[in-house]
Amino acid sequence: MKKLWQKNKNRLMVEVEAFETKGDLLLDQKLIPFDIQGSIAHAKMLKKIHVLTAQELQILLKGLEKINSLYKQNKFLLSFGDEDMHSKLEDFLTKNYGEVGKKIHTGRSRNDQVLTALRLYSISELKEIKFLIKKLIKTLKSYKKEFGSISMPGYTHMQKAMPSSIGLWIENFIAALEDDFKNANNVQDIINQSPLGSAAGYGVPINLNKEFTARLLGFKKVQENPIYCQNSRGKFDANILSALIQLLLTINKLASDFLLFTTTEFSFFQASEDITTGSSIMPQKKNLDIAELLRSKVHLVLGNYVQIVSLSSNLISGYNRDLQDSKKSLMESLEITKDSLKITQLLLLSIKPNKEHLKETITKELFAAEKALNLVLKGDNFRDAYQKIGKNLKGSEKNEKEK
Amino acid sequence: MKKLWQKNKNRLMVEVEAFETKGDLLLDQKLIPFDIQGSIAHAKMLKKIHVLTAQELQILLKGLEKINSLYKQNKFLLSFGDEDMHSKLEDFLTKNYGEVGKKIHTGRSRNDQVLTALRLYSISELKEIKFLIKKLIKTLKSYKKEFGSISMPGYTHMQKAMPSSIGLWIENFIAALEDDFKNANNVQDIINQSPLGSAAGYGVPINLNKEFTARLLGFKKVQENPIYCQNSRGKFDANILSALIQLLLTINKLASDFLLFTTTEFSFFQASEDITTGSSIMPQKKNLDIAELLRSKVHLVLGNYVQIVSLSSNLISGYNRDLQDSKKSLMESLEITKDSLKITQLLLLSIKPNKEHLKETITKELFAAEKALNLVLKGDNFRDAYQKIGKNLKGSEKNEKEK
Amino acid sequence: MKKLWQKNKNRLMVEVEAFETKGDLLLDQKLIPFDIQGSIAHAKMLKKIHVLTAQELQILLKGLEKINSLYKQNKFLLSFGDEDMHSKLEDFLTKNYGEVGKKIHTGRSRNDQVLTALRLYSISELKEIKFLIKKLIKTLKSYKKEFGSISMPGYTHMQKAMPSSIGLWIENFIAALEDDFKNANNVQDIINQSPLGSAAGYGVPINLNKEFTARLLGFKKVQENPIYCQNSRGKFDANILSALIQLLLTINKLASDFLLFTTTEFSFFQASEDITTGSSIMPQKKNLDIAELLRSKVHLVLGNYVQIVSLSSNLISGYNRDLQDSKKSLMESLEITKDSLKITQLLLLSIKPNKEHLKETITKELFAAEKALNLVLKGDNFRDAYQKIGKNLKGSEKNEKEK
Amino acid sequence: MKKLWQKNKNRLMVEVEAFETKGDLLLDQKLIPFDIQGSIAHAKMLKKIHVLTAQELQILLKGLEKINSLYKQNKFLLSFGDEDMHSKLEDFLTKNYGEVGKKIHTGRSRNDQVLTALRLYSISELKEIKFLIKKLIKTLKSYKKEFGSISMPGYTHMQKAMPSSIGLWIENFIAALEDDFKNANNVQDIINQSPLGSAAGYGVPINLNKEFTARLLGFKKVQENPIYCQNSRGKFDANILSALIQLLLTINKLASDFLLFTTTEFSFFQASEDITTGSSIMPQKKNLDIAELLRSKVHLVLGNYVQIVSLSSNLISGYNRDLQDSKKSLMESLEITKDSLKITQLLLLSIKPNKEHLKETITKELFAAEKALNLVLKGDNFRDAYQKIGKNLKGSEKNEKEK
Repeated sequence: MKKLWQKNKNRLMVEVEAFETKGDLLLDQKLIPFDIQGSIAHAKMLKKIHVLTAQELQILLKGLEKINSLYKQNKFLLSFGDEDMHSKLEDFLTKNYGEVGKKIHTGRSRNDQVLTALRLYSISELKEIKFLIKKLIKTLKSYKKEFGSISMPGYTHMQKAMPSSIGLWIENFIAALEDDFKNANNVQDIINQSPLGSAAGYGVPINLNKEFTARLLGFKKVQENPIYCQNSRGKFDANILSALIQLLLTINKLASDFLLFTTTEFSFFQASEDITTGSSIMPQKKNLDIAELLRSKVHLVLGNYVQIVSLSSNLISGYNRDLQDSKKSLMESLEITKDSLKITQLLLLSIKPNKEHLKETITKELFAAEKALNLVLKGDNFRDAYQKIGKNLKGSEKNEKEK
Repeated sequence: MKKLWQKNKNRLMVEVEAFETKGDLLLDQKLIPFDIQGSIAHAKMLKKIHVLTAQELQILLKGLEKINSLYKQNKFLLSFGDEDMHSKLEDFLTKNYGEVGKKIHTGRSRNDQVLTALRLYSISELKEIKFLIKKLIKTLKSYKKEFGSISMPGYTHMQKAMPSSIGLWIENFIAALEDDFKNANNVQDIINQSPLGSAAGYGVPINLNKEFTARLLGFKKVQENPIYCQNSRGKFDANILSALIQLLLTINKLASDFLLFTTTEFSFFQASEDITTGSSIMPQKKNLDIAELLRSKVHLVLGNYVQIVSLSSNLISGYNRDLQDSKKSLMESLEITKDSLKITQLLLLSIKPNKEHLKETITKELFAAEKALNLVLKGDNFRDAYQKIGKNLKGSEKNEKEK
Repeated sequence: MKKLWQKNKNRLMVEVEAFETKGDLLLDQKLIPFDIQGSIAHAKMLKKIHVLTAQELQILLKGLEKINSLYKQNKFLLSFGDEDMHSKLEDFLTKNYGEVGKKIHTGRSRNDQVLTALRLYSISELKEIKFLIKKLIKTLKSYKKEFGSISMPGYTHMQKAMPSSIGLWIENFIAALEDDFKNANNVQDIINQSPLGSAAGYGVPINLNKEFTARLLGFKKVQENPIYCQNSRGKFDANILSALIQLLLTINKLASDFLLFTTTEFSFFQASEDITTGSSIMPQKKNLDIAELLRSKVHLVLGNYVQIVSLSSNLISGYNRDLQDSKKSLMESLEITKDSLKITQLLLLSIKPNKEHLKETITKELFAAEKALNLVLKGDNFRDAYQKIGKNLKGSEKNEKEK
Repeated sequence: MKKLWQKNKNRLMVEVEAFETKGDLLLDQKLIPFDIQGSIAHAKMLKKIHVLTAQELQILLKGLEKINSLYKQNKFLLSFGDEDMHSKLEDFLTKNYGEVGKKIHTGRSRNDQVLTALRLYSISELKEIKFLIKKLIKTLKSYKKEFGSISMPGYTHMQKAMPSSIGLWIENFIAALEDDFKNANNVQDIINQSPLGSAAGYGVPINLNKEFTARLLGFKKVQENPIYCQNSRGKFDANILSALIQLLLTINKLASDFLLFTTTEFSFFQASEDITTGSSIMPQKKNLDIAELLRSKVHLVLGNYVQIVSLSSNLISGYNRDLQDSKKSLMESLEITKDSLKITQLLLLSIKPNKEHLKETITKELFAAEKALNLVLKGDNFRDAYQKIGKNLKGSEKNEKEK
């Protein structure tokens, strides 16, 4: 495909083009619906400010609808030679609808176009993630309702510490998810600014109506400063990922707990067979791989976060192509988080406490602090009571060994 | 110092103790005022629930005030052999005020004590950071007022792109800082929960009044679930750091711009001598080290963030001592951020645009997009207008070379 | 496909299977040739130790050759429902060659199978990378030969510092690449150990001949301890990536330099048009995107490194499925590095110094240190000479301003 | 202190100076002996090339020895106002020995001076680390000798998998440490290049004898290219840290295993009391904090690695002050690694297997793979044998439940 900026027969070296678009076209493929959305708003605005006639707008809208419908049938596919989705869109419109295709880019740049598409995409993903958090909270609440009263030991330093319960333990994840929800909300709120109209990062000398496109696209407000539009790219992406990391830390904790609590030695929980996998060599194995792969996810997004922050710093203001390489880190992380939320949900539905065994785990040393506090209620000071109980425990340990 | 938990003459191996407290005592030293604050609230609550008498409370308050005053005179110093500030506090109270010292730990653990101190500290730091952001925004606004109308080129891909101005450029940092402020606010809001009363992470079997201590300490609410209190430690710390990273990304951009714009080749700005340093070997050098050291800071906090997320994952619920190692990452990052905000402020006060030179930088190719858009206003479609201008430019370039 | 470990009609939940194999099948697709290689060696060894007859071996080799040939025709494709390449291989052999297919897994586990495939793959990639380093060094040497004598300023703190030359500058990359080569070599040497025969991580109670398979596969030695085979997975992967990061830091520096040195303001170099790209809105732009996308790559691999180290720590000994998620981080990083080396090569072939302009950049203040040293040769001590030159410079600066 | 580069009464703003030297002076304090070493070599070389007379050299050597001796008595202390150790050194020499002090900086810059000191320091640290690795390997070998024959289960997916032993398990750490040693060796070998004489990064126009100083300082060779001397700073530091991460991953695995294996539920090992700590609230607790704090260390160095790679990329060639901020990441990481090696040593000396309990953990399902392989030896193919054993296990499980 001839590039939008190509002025003569000189062509970009094939290897260079391959390097510059590698992987990126696959990502753009997923963003097309959002680029169409942005283009529709931009076209409507161009008509409003009289750059397009009503008739031209109709043709463009028809063309964009056509692309949308081809896309849904899996027939609008980016392939090597296409520079990006933006170019492909303009090219398609020009080839099929003539002159109007050459007008749609008036007053915009691919720089603000990709920002708009990414932002619409991110907000849409965050909304789904928030929905999935709510759903997971609901499942946790049912779990607590069903099994909450069962006792289990509480651990510190991985050592049995004090009496706890499934209810207390599950509740801790609910509380964490509620904070995670707030974080997701906050970041959605911050990025909810329309960059459309910032063009290459310095605006354009024609009078675009940025409020109009922002409203059409459902943004909360216009991101007024065009330089900030560009400078906020890696920054906003990093902000999103830090909210996802919060969420995946919660899931990591839940998975870590389940993996310990389902070892033979702990045996607090039993997973149903349709979520465990076997070994190719050891006939007896039933493994909770699902929890291991949930546990690993926060690390993937942490790495993606490092990529974004690291690649977008030490750079001057304005668009730098380095930022293209943050696209995958962003999109992959959102995808990972959605999957993880869904699978955590399934995990909870397929794992049950071993009530009988859990009873046996509530051993007397768990009540040592309670005993010390009882002495306090009878008048001892805490530190002496603590020493007294501590020495008794040592005594009985010793006795036991002597027997 | 004898440890709180020590029951006999066995002692922790000296090398082990050194390893376990290395660096940590220095951090605790800074947290003491917050541990005192938490202890005062806890003592008042113990009186309210009748574990302490009014008289005992008076003695404890006197003791804690004494510590506070010694601390301010730099006379309450942790040193090797002290396990941590919590132990030192109880030890001091017991040694100097007897029996009541042994009562203050009733119903609490060092686990919730350190959480409380860290949280009070973090909130206090975030408040100062928010104040410094506001101050920096004010300085940027003055800068814009003074120099905003001066033109400068806008860059994309590090290449001159379109006309811009100091005003547009400065405004982009203001907008960024306003979002950074929101992030700082959000994280302050999320961590604003009192963990006091969660004890070792599983509550205690006596009826503490957690609402009362929360209120005394100025927390927005009680963090009800005691397991979540512990599990939120690394998580909240990471959340704070991600807000700081947002802020330091803004400063990194500003520093990167200034460093490029003060090269001889660009010469957009001139720094005053009292913020530049020289070379030990090249007599002519004037370096803007200050901007280089501002630029590097986001990377330090990024690394600290990786430390916290990485060390607090793949661990089971409840207190794990690994988390002690996040204390430095947290405290150092808050410190770095405060310093950076203050120094950015100073930098702005000592650097001025080279008006004359900036005028010359506004060259005609910056107006190529404007020219294309002018053709559009005269009826051309954008893509053809773009081609026309593009070819003219190539022509004139060619001509210039031929001359 | 029925799983190797499936004993009855219970099936893994579809969503769980999707989550567990997502992305992974695409990676396995690239590893198939190495899994075949490992399987051939394993089969030959089984014959040698009389688990297989000569005839059975012939059938298996025929089968594995068949798979290889299908693979090359793009007809041996993993798809959803396949657990992994290992299962697919055994399944294909059993379906098409009967009984012998059921024998190939004797004495091995998918745990050592994947380790073997990944290690063969990594070594093969490292060899190619070493070849590409050598090639790039050669190109740099030609560049130095052609343009080395041209002067250019040397910078410290981004400020003009002392006289330098293209030769000195290019030579610095050659020296860096020579060290990078050593690192690549070192890591190749360390991972050059055959894990085949370690089975699930604890060996097997039959007498495998691990030296024989190691020799067949070209490994330098057997990795004797089976637990270490597993424990070294993330560790070796991280080791590889750290060598790649060294290399990409060199490329990052080269790209950063070129990006600054091709700004209009510096104009030290001129890139040919077939490696620059344009803007969709600004007709005049010629951007060196290629260097920006080279610059970003070290950050991607840094993030991948964080993923591997972070996900493989805080885990107990033995295989943990979390490690599956390091496969992409590893393979993608090797791919990125190869591409970057090739493209850096191209970049050098398409970018030339602006000799005329570079002459003008050698201004007199660059010689201030030289002047001071000349005074030293005439008997001054260095610090006083430095002061003298420094003051003269200030004077002449002042004079210039006064004119 | 007046700065080396200060030419008039203008002073660096106090806040700027505080920001620029914060923390750095403490680090420099540790590097002084290496800076003295470098200075001695430089002075000797200046005499050799006739910049200094024999007598002047004697005075300088006396002065440097004086500093060394003051340093050892803790009387040569950097404090606020000192720019760095290099300036302090020159200042001291000039003040106390007059004219010759002003000559020592002839032909060098603080840029190559700090590189030299850091490199000497790093090599010295790496040597000690290699010594500590050897020592730890020796301890592991004794441990294996004493307890190696005791059986323990081997785990995959955290589930009991196959029979293993303390010997096999310990041996895995020995093998890992041997590879870690090679890595440390490799990096020591790569950084073993003398940067002294590269001056500010572009050499000097007088004929220094770099081979002479390199030999005096014990370097393997001269780092010839002066630009590479500077450009290798962050790069070499990162290289060192990646070798440390390899080592700390080994320790992390050992600590993770011990933490699981000392839970009450596993009870494979028993730690002696002088390495366990108690709880301030729960009288019964004995915690293996030491292993938790060993486990956390790889994460700290990982974060430090991110700091160095991230801050030293996207920068142009030559010295950039950003690099100062890598000093702490480097020095702290070396310190952490040494401590961790020593403490791991102690841990092993204080923790013993519970022989009796370990016997009971060797349950029959661990032999399922062995049974299947026995059927293979009797003529079954592996996959059918696997199925047979697998179904028997399911049967017996069912029977057990029915009882």
